Amino acid sequence: MINWENTTELDAFNKLLASVSVNLQEVMAGAEGARRVAECSVPMAAGLVYNYAAKAVDGDILNILAELADEAQLIQKYRELYNGAIINTGENRLVLHHLTRGQLGNAVIADGVDKREFYLSIEKEIAEFADKVHSGEITNEAGERFTAVVQIGVGGSDLGPRAVYMALENWCRAKDRLLMKAGFISNVDPDDALNVIGTTDLEHTLFILVSKSGTTLETLTNESFVREKLAEAGLKPSRHMIAVTSRTSPIATSDEYMKAFFMDDYIGGRYSVTSAVGGVILSLAFGPDIFHRFISGAAEADKMADNPQILENAALLDALIGVYERNVLGYKAMAMLPYSQALSRFPAHLQQLEMESNGKSVNRFGEPIDYDTGYIIFGEPGTNGQHSFYQLLHQGTDVIPLQFIGFRKSQTGSDLEIQGSTSQQKLCANVAAQIMAFACGRDNEDTNKRFDGGRPCSLIVGEQLTPEATGALISHFENKIMFQGFIWNINSFDQEGVQLGKTLTRDVLSHKTDGALKGYSDLLGI
Amino acid sequence: MINWENTTELDAFNKLLASVSVNLQEVMAGAEGARRVAECSVPMAAGLVYNYAAKAVDGDILNILAELADEAQLIQKYRELYNGAIINTGENRLVLHHLTRGQLGNAVIADGVDKREFYLSIEKEIAEFADKVHSGEITNEAGERFTAVVQIGVGGSDLGPRAVYMALENWCRAKDRLLMKAGFISNVDPDDALNVIGTTDLEHTLFILVSKSGTTLETLTNESFVREKLAEAGLKPSRHMIAVTSRTSPIATSDEYMKAFFMDDYIGGRYSVTSAVGGVILSLAFGPDIFHRFISGAAEADKMADNPQILENAALLDALIGVYERNVLGYKAMAMLPYSQALSRFPAHLQQLEMESNGKSVNRFGEPIDYDTGYIIFGEPGTNGQHSFYQLLHQGTDVIPLQFIGFRKSQTGSDLEIQGSTSQQKLCANVAAQIMAFACGRDNEDTNKRFDGGRPCSLIVGEQLTPEATGALISHFENKIMFQGFIWNINSFDQEGVQLGKTLTRDVLSHKTDGALKGYSDLLGI
Repeated sequence: MINWENTTELDAFNKLLASVSVNLQEVMAGAEGARRVAECSVPMAAGLVYNYAAKAVDGDILNILAELADEAQLIQKYRELYNGAIINTGENRLVLHHLTRGQLGNAVIADGVDKREFYLSIEKEIAEFADKVHSGEITNEAGERFTAVVQIGVGGSDLGPRAVYMALENWCRAKDRLLMKAGFISNVDPDDALNVIGTTDLEHTLFILVSKSGTTLETLTNESFVREKLAEAGLKPSRHMIAVTSRTSPIATSDEYMKAFFMDDYIGGRYSVTSAVGGVILSLAFGPDIFHRFISGAAEADKMADNPQILENAALLDALIGVYERNVLGYKAMAMLPYSQALSRFPAHLQQLEMESNGKSVNRFGEPIDYDTGYIIFGEPGTNGQHSFYQLLHQGTDVIPLQFIGFRKSQTGSDLEIQGSTSQQKLCANVAAQIMAFACGRDNEDTNKRFDGGRPCSLIVGEQLTPEATGALISHFENKIMFQGFIWNINSFDQEGVQLGKTLTRDVLSHKTDGALKGYSDLLGI
Repeated sequence: MINWENTTELDAFNKLLASVSVNLQEVMAGAEGARRVAECSVPMAAGLVYNYAAKAVDGDILNILAELADEAQLIQKYRELYNGAIINTGENRLVLHHLTRGQLGNAVIADGVDKREFYLSIEKEIAEFADKVHSGEITNEAGERFTAVVQIGVGGSDLGPRAVYMALENWCRAKDRLLMKAGFISNVDPDDALNVIGTTDLEHTLFILVSKSGTTLETLTNESFVREKLAEAGLKPSRHMIAVTSRTSPIATSDEYMKAFFMDDYIGGRYSVTSAVGGVILSLAFGPDIFHRFISGAAEADKMADNPQILENAALLDALIGVYERNVLGYKAMAMLPYSQALSRFPAHLQQLEMESNGKSVNRFGEPIDYDTGYIIFGEPGTNGQHSFYQLLHQGTDVIPLQFIGFRKSQTGSDLEIQGSTSQQKLCANVAAQIMAFACGRDNEDTNKRFDGGRPCSLIVGEQLTPEATGALISHFENKIMFQGFIWNINSFDQEGVQLGKTLTRDVLSHKTDGALKGYSDLLGI
């Protein structure tokens, strides 16, 4: 029997509120600090490790967090989800993105089909199509091979696929596996589309229109823009355009597209990178085998998230510590700091994942809640951020928890030793140094140079940013956010907060405005 | 006589704490809302306008903010600064970035020279060099023209120049004024440098090394990387490398550089985009006249920031409202939302500007303070962000003030009408709609679809994102942050918070570690 209770109704949460906090500076010093770093590691998928030594938790707090996980039935709720319960209550929908990666529980039948088989069949269809493009069986009108692919989509159809493409572009290039160069058009700003088109060899480019409903205004506008440019260049748009959409959208049966791949309502945009939304562009860019390796990393992480032992389940532990920091320690944000330029758009993807999923003020029954939920996620790759906003992280008046990500090896293997160390060693040395500076701080007679420390950090570390590791990272944060949504008793899978803006935009464009809205429309020259 | 007092010692601040707050939903409704939008505009430089209608302030609060500006002597302190007082007390330095744009007050003599004349002479030297590169007087060893330029720098040597380059790249391209394509190498991650170099035509590329001290580890590492790649390609590195540095750095006199342009200690990295740090790359990319237009926009904004009337001084008003939101209403962050893809890296620049300048916990005399200072800045261009983190902004449990930026015209002029409106009109319609949705919200029987509103927004609006407008924006935020630093009685011009990480990184690289630092070093394979 599943109970959906508000956070503040849980005994373990109230115990947590009364718990004694940990002095991070003290426990991270000396031998105890060394012991923590050695012991506080949880294995993740694809050989990654989640280390929480520099989080302000101890045995007592971890015990209460384990009670919280049990009392809030986090693993049972996950099992409900992947076995096909209607977890997205607001929209009365199943939540099935895990099924794009593997079968975790029972067969899930919806719309009259086995959904795992459906997603597998789509992955196969994409692989066959990609192979034909790569082999030259599918070509442009002149019989020439396509060499580039551009995705037209916004939100989840853009951020996840773009973050993963950038994560693996150099890795593939170094292995001669960058089969097609990828681009992305997302913003309705006409300068964005023009910029991408202006630097694209239209004749040899495939465009992927991604829209579940086939009605997203930005995306359709950009599609028309692209079609016009293709026609101007004397090309037949339908020979350059494929689609990812739902079976019921007007696009599904249109002959304006060479091919349509299907998605469904059970996968939200921000959770769709392992579905056809990411699958088509990543399979075209890198080949279906690389896409499958990416998916398999996520599948392994999904399985590991099913473990009820919090010290063996990185996603669960990360979620619980995050709730402790948010609702007990009162922190308002988290900085995502990947020490890998390839992960430069990963913070933007996680920003959507977290803030769109858990930025809610009512529980899953629509009742107002009186505790904090989703927080701000922001970040830039290290070491760049160190020369920018880290000043505030170190010496500002607010404490902001930090998530570091680092890899022992670079993606390309090309490196140079200067002053006795390689660039990759310097990169990693900065990760170690920053975590210690944040956790322990350092006293100084000159108060201007004093570091209080006490700023909690976690570290995800791996050998190299591979396709599997990228999939494991994506899944880790998806599942973390899911568990937090369960603890907060909210629906992490709808996004009603985007609707009012859409309604008012239509009013402005049809000139049905008065009052301040008319004032702003005038000011903006509409 | 200038008094440097803590915020909480100011009578006006205590009055502000006791003031009656404004119900934004109410005042933005109906005729009063229309009146606010019409009346609450402050002219900025380059034809921009700062509109604060949707900020939770009224006549009473604005009166107290005016008192606060007077009591904290904000304009007098600005005048002290540009007249050459030692405002950067921690480092015992003048703060002279305004002088790169124009002479606001008396001549400032430092290091035995008139600093305005010094900066002008550098701008002239850069212009002459850029003209020679463009005309083909300065070429590579084969006598061929340079067609690309790559900046090697980190922090302020990267973020500001990159943000401005991206802001104007399309504008220049549309006018056939993109003279050289620019790239940037910043991260010590070796994959970053390799990626830029791999997509660069080395033979025809000029590299700019930017390092004030000539000792920044990341930058020197990347420089060596580039030199090695140039040598491997059979090119003479010194014929492809110029420098921006201080007169006293080892680089200044090295013959490993074709040319060195000087900067000095009176301009912090994050304030340096109008100095040689931005000047060389922007003059090479766009031509010295475009760089000068950019500077002139900033100069005009600097002059307007000298006005003691808060309703005529956008930077001052923006600063005061920001302090009210931070220290009275208790908000912890601000989202920067430019509706222009060209401003995609502008939030990252502002993130550094704000968080590195004002993320401090001691006042300018080194005394601990007991009130909040600098806050989190994050953001992405609209409309993209709408499909991502706006959910939390609309319906999350924290209120986050929002800074919108919009332009009536696109940069390229190329556009397409779909469903009765152009893309640019759709973009602007979204700005108007979002502000109203945030400010007023909307009730709904379904609580899941309910928007509380009451989320404060300001809007900077202009005709087009031109060089002048870009300069005006840069200066606006620099001056806003300066005024906030004055109110908080902190030193906005040092960054001691970056030092401890550097020290510990050196320890790791020289294997002088024990305890947890050694543990992390092991974990990261160093």
